[in-house]
Amino acid sequence: MGADRGEDALARLNRLVAQDLQACNTLIIQRMQSPVALIPQLAAHIIAAGGKRLRPLLTLATSRLCGYEGARHVALAACVEFIHTATLLHDDVVDESALRRGQASANALFGNKASVLVGDFLFARAFQLMIEDKNLEVLRILAGASATIAEGEVLQLITQNDLSSTEAQYLEVIQGKTAALFAAAARLGAVVGDRPQAEAEALDAYGNNLGIAFQLVDDALDYSAEQARLGKTVGDDFREGKITLPVLTAFHAGDAAEQEFWRRTLEAGEQNDDDFAEAQRLIARHRGIERTIERAELYGNAALKALEIFPNGEARAALADVVRFCIERAR
Amino acid sequence: MGADRGEDALARLNRLVAQDLQACNTLIIQRMQSPVALIPQLAAHIIAAGGKRLRPLLTLATSRLCGYEGARHVALAACVEFIHTATLLHDDVVDESALRRGQASANALFGNKASVLVGDFLFARAFQLMIEDKNLEVLRILAGASATIAEGEVLQLITQNDLSSTEAQYLEVIQGKTAALFAAAARLGAVVGDRPQAEAEALDAYGNNLGIAFQLVDDALDYSAEQARLGKTVGDDFREGKITLPVLTAFHAGDAAEQEFWRRTLEAGEQNDDDFAEAQRLIARHRGIERTIERAELYGNAALKALEIFPNGEARAALADVVRFCIERAR
Repeated sequence: MGADRGEDALARLNRLVAQDLQACNTLIIQRMQSPVALIPQLAAHIIAAGGKRLRPLLTLATSRLCGYEGARHVALAACVEFIHTATLLHDDVVDESALRRGQASANALFGNKASVLVGDFLFARAFQLMIEDKNLEVLRILAGASATIAEGEVLQLITQNDLSSTEAQYLEVIQGKTAALFAAAARLGAVVGDRPQAEAEALDAYGNNLGIAFQLVDDALDYSAEQARLGKTVGDDFREGKITLPVLTAFHAGDAAEQEFWRRTLEAGEQNDDDFAEAQRLIARHRGIERTIERAELYGNAALKALEIFPNGEARAALADVVRFCIERAR
Repeated sequence: MGADRGEDALARLNRLVAQDLQACNTLIIQRMQSPVALIPQLAAHIIAAGGKRLRPLLTLATSRLCGYEGARHVALAACVEFIHTATLLHDDVVDESALRRGQASANALFGNKASVLVGDFLFARAFQLMIEDKNLEVLRILAGASATIAEGEVLQLITQNDLSSTEAQYLEVIQGKTAALFAAAARLGAVVGDRPQAEAEALDAYGNNLGIAFQLVDDALDYSAEQARLGKTVGDDFREGKITLPVLTAFHAGDAAEQEFWRRTLEAGEQNDDDFAEAQRLIARHRGIERTIERAELYGNAALKALEIFPNGEARAALADVVRFCIERAR
């Protein structure tokens, strides 16, 4: 299945930076500690949940690609993961309106407030860690990415429940909320490796295009019948009224009755038990998933293209694998 | 009245750094801009709400005290205000439990999620601004304060609704959530002024003690009959089940029936319309407000004491005024 091929696809990457990743994980556990016990408890709940560590892996692998042999990249990879975890925690925060619709929230265990404050702590910790690196370019990259992430998240909030939002706005949202951190994570390799500007920009372009592809696939999978069959959660975006590319595709190609369906479920937020299945049918009718994946492939190819200025070798191959992993999990 | 005397008390300070404060306000408006329109809208709602700018004023005045004549302190004062505003926005986030009790939330206008995300943006902007200063000591101070603030806020969340929490824990909470940023704001003056470590530590001690005094008075005023008479909001802490010094004083000195009252209202969160008035009566009976103010005076005196290593002059007098302002608004 797609998921298994995906894991295989990351094997070379994981082998390449296995020791660095272990050091990074140790540092993450060490630096999320606090005398306030709820902080490591809640942080561990997310951090230890065993994500793929995709973003820190990018920093570790691009550092390798750039011939860096020191230890700075380990701490910077931990920074990247802390920033990502903070945004996940803040993404968990729900609004009164969402609570009223009786949705189960990801923060059910700890509550809104704890998610926000522990996220703030991790964000502050990320900055403390990166300051220890004492490099202003590193600081500029990660602080800039943090601001862009917040802008992307706010834009997502604004365009939510609004079917008049455009594909351009959608791309701006995912560039901000997802691709900015991928780009920063990848670019850091060129900074610690002290490589020329052209290589920093190539890695930035690689990360940015990869991040957009990754999010496009994520948004496609949220309507995938195959994912549901594999026991993965689907339908989150639908329930939250997020306007993603599969939806925009089906909405703009749909007839009046279909458009009325989307308006009721996503704009007015009136959803019945059968509505998600209907949403999946309408998206399938207009090939919304396939078109979204095709778009992801274009960005994936741009990511691969950006790697071409680097010499062929294990590190470059591992970074190319990440692109294939992101696309193939959709198949 | 106390409030008016308080404004007078800050007149010298405001006169001393009037131009700097104006430059700081201009920079704040400029740097909170974003193509995502909701960000400046929501930020303006809090930033333009016309706080006293107490924290940035500390940075401006201590820079003057330290003989600094450049422009770095203006941007750093703006950073301090951005960090403060971000924490205010995140403080606005409410939990499902609070919503269930039907409380009006400070974020009613924009919602939890917008408060969190715009707070994140301002926090990231603060870091971008301070990175432009290119001084690692400045970065360490402000990143450290940010982590301490988050720890204090989480500790407050844990001790909320828990009458077994101690006075020591309460002091730890207010040291983190309030005093850490006062201390950082004041210390920055010594850094930009390139003064010896002893002066940096004296200003840190000044800010820290001032911040604790400020928060103690704030917590006393939240039960003040006089404040209510002046039309100010009171009772927020009571409704949120915060365990502050006036409450701990009345709880520990109270008889069994009184302790039962506090358990029902603050621990179980069962509150009737008359309960806040009863809470005020019980606190008055055990002199909870007076004892809290007396404690604030001790910290205020420690703040004044810390200023003594600096030469007498307008800047030092203005900083001493801030201490008096913080205490006198309680009278």
